[in-house]
Amino acid sequence: MLTMPIPEYLQEILDNVHDNTSGEVADYIPELKAADPNPLAVALCTVDGHIYSAGDDSVEFTMQSISKPFAYALALQECGTEEVFKTVAVEPSGEAFNELSLDGENRPMNPMINAGAIAINQLINGPDSTVEDRVEKLRAYFSELAGRELTIDRGLSDSELTGADRNLSIAHMLRNYDVIADDAHDAVLSYTLQCSIKVTARDLAVMTATLAAGGVHPITGKTLLDARVCRLTLSVMASAGMYNEAGQWLSSVGIPAKSGVAGGLIGILPGQLGIATFSPRLNPKGNSVRGVEIFKQLSEDMGLHLMSTEQVSGHAVRSITQDGDTTYIRMQGAMNFSASEAFLHAIVSHEFSGDTVILDLSRVLTFHPVATRMIKEGLKRIRDAGYSVAILDPDDVLPDFTFSDGTLCRQLS
Amino acid sequence: MLTMPIPEYLQEILDNVHDNTSGEVADYIPELKAADPNPLAVALCTVDGHIYSAGDDSVEFTMQSISKPFAYALALQECGTEEVFKTVAVEPSGEAFNELSLDGENRPMNPMINAGAIAINQLINGPDSTVEDRVEKLRAYFSELAGRELTIDRGLSDSELTGADRNLSIAHMLRNYDVIADDAHDAVLSYTLQCSIKVTARDLAVMTATLAAGGVHPITGKTLLDARVCRLTLSVMASAGMYNEAGQWLSSVGIPAKSGVAGGLIGILPGQLGIATFSPRLNPKGNSVRGVEIFKQLSEDMGLHLMSTEQVSGHAVRSITQDGDTTYIRMQGAMNFSASEAFLHAIVSHEFSGDTVILDLSRVLTFHPVATRMIKEGLKRIRDAGYSVAILDPDDVLPDFTFSDGTLCRQLS
Amino acid sequence: MLTMPIPEYLQEILDNVHDNTSGEVADYIPELKAADPNPLAVALCTVDGHIYSAGDDSVEFTMQSISKPFAYALALQECGTEEVFKTVAVEPSGEAFNELSLDGENRPMNPMINAGAIAINQLINGPDSTVEDRVEKLRAYFSELAGRELTIDRGLSDSELTGADRNLSIAHMLRNYDVIADDAHDAVLSYTLQCSIKVTARDLAVMTATLAAGGVHPITGKTLLDARVCRLTLSVMASAGMYNEAGQWLSSVGIPAKSGVAGGLIGILPGQLGIATFSPRLNPKGNSVRGVEIFKQLSEDMGLHLMSTEQVSGHAVRSITQDGDTTYIRMQGAMNFSASEAFLHAIVSHEFSGDTVILDLSRVLTFHPVATRMIKEGLKRIRDAGYSVAILDPDDVLPDFTFSDGTLCRQLS
Amino acid sequence: MLTMPIPEYLQEILDNVHDNTSGEVADYIPELKAADPNPLAVALCTVDGHIYSAGDDSVEFTMQSISKPFAYALALQECGTEEVFKTVAVEPSGEAFNELSLDGENRPMNPMINAGAIAINQLINGPDSTVEDRVEKLRAYFSELAGRELTIDRGLSDSELTGADRNLSIAHMLRNYDVIADDAHDAVLSYTLQCSIKVTARDLAVMTATLAAGGVHPITGKTLLDARVCRLTLSVMASAGMYNEAGQWLSSVGIPAKSGVAGGLIGILPGQLGIATFSPRLNPKGNSVRGVEIFKQLSEDMGLHLMSTEQVSGHAVRSITQDGDTTYIRMQGAMNFSASEAFLHAIVSHEFSGDTVILDLSRVLTFHPVATRMIKEGLKRIRDAGYSVAILDPDDVLPDFTFSDGTLCRQLS
Repeated sequence: MLTMPIPEYLQEILDNVHDNTSGEVADYIPELKAADPNPLAVALCTVDGHIYSAGDDSVEFTMQSISKPFAYALALQECGTEEVFKTVAVEPSGEAFNELSLDGENRPMNPMINAGAIAINQLINGPDSTVEDRVEKLRAYFSELAGRELTIDRGLSDSELTGADRNLSIAHMLRNYDVIADDAHDAVLSYTLQCSIKVTARDLAVMTATLAAGGVHPITGKTLLDARVCRLTLSVMASAGMYNEAGQWLSSVGIPAKSGVAGGLIGILPGQLGIATFSPRLNPKGNSVRGVEIFKQLSEDMGLHLMSTEQVSGHAVRSITQDGDTTYIRMQGAMNFSASEAFLHAIVSHEFSGDTVILDLSRVLTFHPVATRMIKEGLKRIRDAGYSVAILDPDDVLPDFTFSDGTLCRQLS
Repeated sequence: MLTMPIPEYLQEILDNVHDNTSGEVADYIPELKAADPNPLAVALCTVDGHIYSAGDDSVEFTMQSISKPFAYALALQECGTEEVFKTVAVEPSGEAFNELSLDGENRPMNPMINAGAIAINQLINGPDSTVEDRVEKLRAYFSELAGRELTIDRGLSDSELTGADRNLSIAHMLRNYDVIADDAHDAVLSYTLQCSIKVTARDLAVMTATLAAGGVHPITGKTLLDARVCRLTLSVMASAGMYNEAGQWLSSVGIPAKSGVAGGLIGILPGQLGIATFSPRLNPKGNSVRGVEIFKQLSEDMGLHLMSTEQVSGHAVRSITQDGDTTYIRMQGAMNFSASEAFLHAIVSHEFSGDTVILDLSRVLTFHPVATRMIKEGLKRIRDAGYSVAILDPDDVLPDFTFSDGTLCRQLS
Repeated sequence: MLTMPIPEYLQEILDNVHDNTSGEVADYIPELKAADPNPLAVALCTVDGHIYSAGDDSVEFTMQSISKPFAYALALQECGTEEVFKTVAVEPSGEAFNELSLDGENRPMNPMINAGAIAINQLINGPDSTVEDRVEKLRAYFSELAGRELTIDRGLSDSELTGADRNLSIAHMLRNYDVIADDAHDAVLSYTLQCSIKVTARDLAVMTATLAAGGVHPITGKTLLDARVCRLTLSVMASAGMYNEAGQWLSSVGIPAKSGVAGGLIGILPGQLGIATFSPRLNPKGNSVRGVEIFKQLSEDMGLHLMSTEQVSGHAVRSITQDGDTTYIRMQGAMNFSASEAFLHAIVSHEFSGDTVILDLSRVLTFHPVATRMIKEGLKRIRDAGYSVAILDPDDVLPDFTFSDGTLCRQLS
Repeated sequence: MLTMPIPEYLQEILDNVHDNTSGEVADYIPELKAADPNPLAVALCTVDGHIYSAGDDSVEFTMQSISKPFAYALALQECGTEEVFKTVAVEPSGEAFNELSLDGENRPMNPMINAGAIAINQLINGPDSTVEDRVEKLRAYFSELAGRELTIDRGLSDSELTGADRNLSIAHMLRNYDVIADDAHDAVLSYTLQCSIKVTARDLAVMTATLAAGGVHPITGKTLLDARVCRLTLSVMASAGMYNEAGQWLSSVGIPAKSGVAGGLIGILPGQLGIATFSPRLNPKGNSVRGVEIFKQLSEDMGLHLMSTEQVSGHAVRSITQDGDTTYIRMQGAMNFSASEAFLHAIVSHEFSGDTVILDLSRVLTFHPVATRMIKEGLKRIRDAGYSVAILDPDDVLPDFTFSDGTLCRQLS
């Protein structure tokens, strides 16, 4: 049996950052201050459910702010975008994580700052929910995402509550502006318990991969979120996930991300994979020092920058060849808008001869609706120009075999 | 000869938005106020240089703020990231386009607000440049991006200068904080002339496609910018391009974009295409009303949202089959990190038998360095397990044929 | 027995403003919203304890923010300026009354905004005081100032507490920044009870007159506050008492003042009198509409503007005359710095002859220490020039009869 | 001839602060940076025109921001309050001197910050004035206030203009908001020349005394400003003259004041005197270190705090005595509201007998209109009660001899 080199690659990255012991663990509550500063872990989970990790990947820590995007996704899924957008805006706040920042409509600026996160927490399980029911709903949901039963560090949440004046201040101001209706103490209790759910780096990688996969759990295959919900969650992570260095992070790392004061850090490559790191020492902006280093290295080495301009979809038209009276058009890869454009460009540039045109989709992976539409329109034009058209689709990637006018197209078997 | 349906599709979109005459043309200078509010155009240009357009695609208008990302890219290319980052930050400002917004280090918040754009303009052609030389450099560069000689609307820039108090106020404040050294009037003149370069929607689509293509001009094939420069430019467009609705835009449209008060609007899909629209009536936030509509429709219809979670790289391992003593591993698509992970995952899960393993790359499009490294390591492990390994790469997509330890691997011809 | 015209004069002023029913009663709690909007009263109390009033001068209402300057004075008296200044700054905040406004040292900007007033309340009776003891101390103190036992409207304070989210938000933020140590709910309860102490316009006039009189109660003659405490309290009322129209108020009315949302308004002329009005309808800035009108009229008619440049101390030297060998210098009025300057100026300009100089103080009212010093120095110089000097002081306004070198001066009987 | 001790007293104060060489001279232009840091001066001028000074009282320096209140007074006098208030507000800005701070109506917050001062400067001599005419008007006016021909340090103003980016930024922003109409460079030139008018500490004391005296020049006796203009100017100095330590200054010093970066500092006691100091080293807030010390000492020693609660008007009723059938009421001091109240209180408390009442005004200094009205009303009531009333007014301080019903009252000669 062969061994897998990816964990070794991840271990290499950990070795590179291991000696960087700069930064300080969060000190605003005794439990976090007393935390072991040394654990170091990284984990990846692909949208296919393959998990890779290195270091202290099974050490538990509290999610803290990392819970925000997952709670936001759950609120969007439960309440719909209209209600969520009415409650919390999606603009970057340019402020540190715990500021009270309301926009002109008295909405918290975004769900990644505490004001927004407290408001989002209150949307879960309806306005009449008890705190325990709301938190249980979140815990159960996070557990389903993680693929195991997560527990709550109630000792930590009790300690957080003791020093929760800033969050209580925020909750009362939210009540004052009718953003939330619940008792302020209960709202903060509920949010604090959400933050106190314990995870490992592996858990976070799996949870995050569901967002990367458009809502489909990478292991169970269950659809837990709409693709649109995932897209919105990733968008707000990209624009506001890293507090007042969101722009710097997008430029240098280019991965939608979220950090927590317990030392966790997650990132998502849409359609590809979820990433999680754990290292408790924080930089002055409250982000894990070594976690940031790991993300920079992964982004650089692995070409994971969202604004990467490598042509992921190039060469969609593999070839156009003629064999006797038959012209073969061979497509390859994922059929998105760009691929269908390449197809259309190719056929209008091509001088067809003979009497038959066969579209070979045997190397095609997927079809986006716009590509379906475009390619069917191209086929229709070939047919209208007098050719007999047939499709070869051994893997059934095309949903149906019609021209753009709805008439049936011949299928080769 | 077949006709191309994409322009028809674009025309359909224009028809959908045509009757929306809400909004007002910019009125702060007489020339803009007197502009015909009715032109409507959309243009796309793929990274392969295919251009599609509809409507008034050859009507000229001034670039205005759309010049900002191109000037930023030129400054990054000319001066390097270090000098540019020292001068202008990359954080969203949450403010309207013409506010003076400096960060704690007295840097304008980002190059998409006027304060940042004036500072960036001053970096072009060195500190000792005359205004005319600096502007000519920009004009020549923008012309090379557009593929034709662009001209400057000097009547408009004269008019803009007359009412340029806000920009003059900004320029003096920048001088006061030593962000710029030039005479304030000259700095504003230089920036205003940059803004007064005239383009059509088609020009903008072509110019933008170079950013989408990592700096390679889609038609001439000349490398005009480093891929890294394009990535940074796209990043700042994503986080700050749409002023104080940057977050909303990223959520709903998901395309890095920039608008200008003359009615232009550009967007970029990294690795895929550049998009430009033109319609002079603006919403209260200063963005083209119909331009925004068109972008929303394109994003929705064409699946162009940056946070789209469709699995662009799925199914990289097409099949593993055995024929006698030979195992065939057939890869397909672009080999990025995810694809190489799929390969590794497949080989460590597979129970090999026989004595030979052949990696078939004939359906593979491209190789990212991390994928090269990962796949070579996988091949080495197969070899070390006692198999004879060979590569079939008819299109020469793999740069060289070595294992991860540097020894040569057999290539099938 | 003659009748006093001042109440008639005050009634005239009430008649002038009576028909102005613009504005709205405070509506943020039911009890205030249900208040009768019609009562109208004005009351004055001189530093000699003469009280004049008109209208509904015995209708009770809650002090609300009018309690702030009295609590501030009590805190200064109890804790000393050092501790008070360490806790709350004295700069105008330019903000509405209920904003959280902290300076660079995390101190509330001034004691007239709620953040500052809550912090000041906490200083009363020491950090370990119960809420009830603290509130009783305030109530007892306010009662002593008013000259009768005041009571607390506990129904109103209960109602205020129900909707006290803004104050609770402020209290938690103050705790967060270690400005206060007490439980946030208790801090707000304590402050709210302070605000709920019931007074009449007459009560307020008497209370305010003590501040005008440098801390001496105008009726009982008891010294309740140091003169310095009164000066500091008046100063902060002048700079910050009228929220974000402090500058406008100082320009147009020129009387240090404070308003409360129940409709009260107080003002103080240092050394002269306290003024109070009551009319519940408020302008959009939260100040009593008719109260403001009354103050403007009183300031205009009665010459009460603090910046009034009328020469209160002119003509201090009534005459210098000679009778035989004796020169008589007759002083009149209050001997402050200006008066003593006039004396010195007169004697150095005068050509003395004869052998005796008599200083006649029989028309002099009071002596400021600087005047004592200056005049004694002048007398010494006359003596040193060879004249025999004597003082005529039938009312004993000069504390002792020495020259500036400490030697005795002859006193005429 | 006797010598005057006040200069000696002032010298003592200078000696007390002489050794404090902390702080730095303004360094933003070479001329100020090169200034001799050592001069030290103090000067007083009473409303009677007596001038006292000590130290380097004839060293010239530029007015800088000290010109602001005088230009404001001139604008009020020339244009009226309505136009001035429409242009510049009177609220404290809580900001440093050179910030651009506009209120909701796009007015600079007050005339003591640069934005307001530039706008005020533009009001002088009308909108069509040339710069030279405007500046000459200011220079001539300031000269009349100072009592000698002042000159402009054009070398300094040239130097200031070179580095005037902040003011130019402000001027352009003011133009942008239509607060000023003139060319921005000319506006700053005009303001800078105003600031470059050279004065000595003695000049400033005299100029300031005119404001203290309600607009009457203390030496020439010419009325240069309305009393109302002086009151408004003093009000805005009190609320905004000391930038972001206005509240602190009002609490601790209590004298309306204004400082300039060349080291000058002025203060005004309404109705009493003008004060000026000069010492170029500045504290971090831009105020003269030793100047602030001197003001604190003068305020403390001389009882000059505006909120001082000493009873300036006490004992207005010197005595009520009876001689046969005649009752004598002897008044003394200045007859303001408080004095007239004392009169009324005395007569309604008194049990009159006999048939004649004589009001003796021979010790009365001045009459405020409200006192005239009140006292005449009291006399009428005495008359109506059946007494024969006469007035003894040897110094003619009462304007006419009528009862409040207009009928004539007997006058004793």
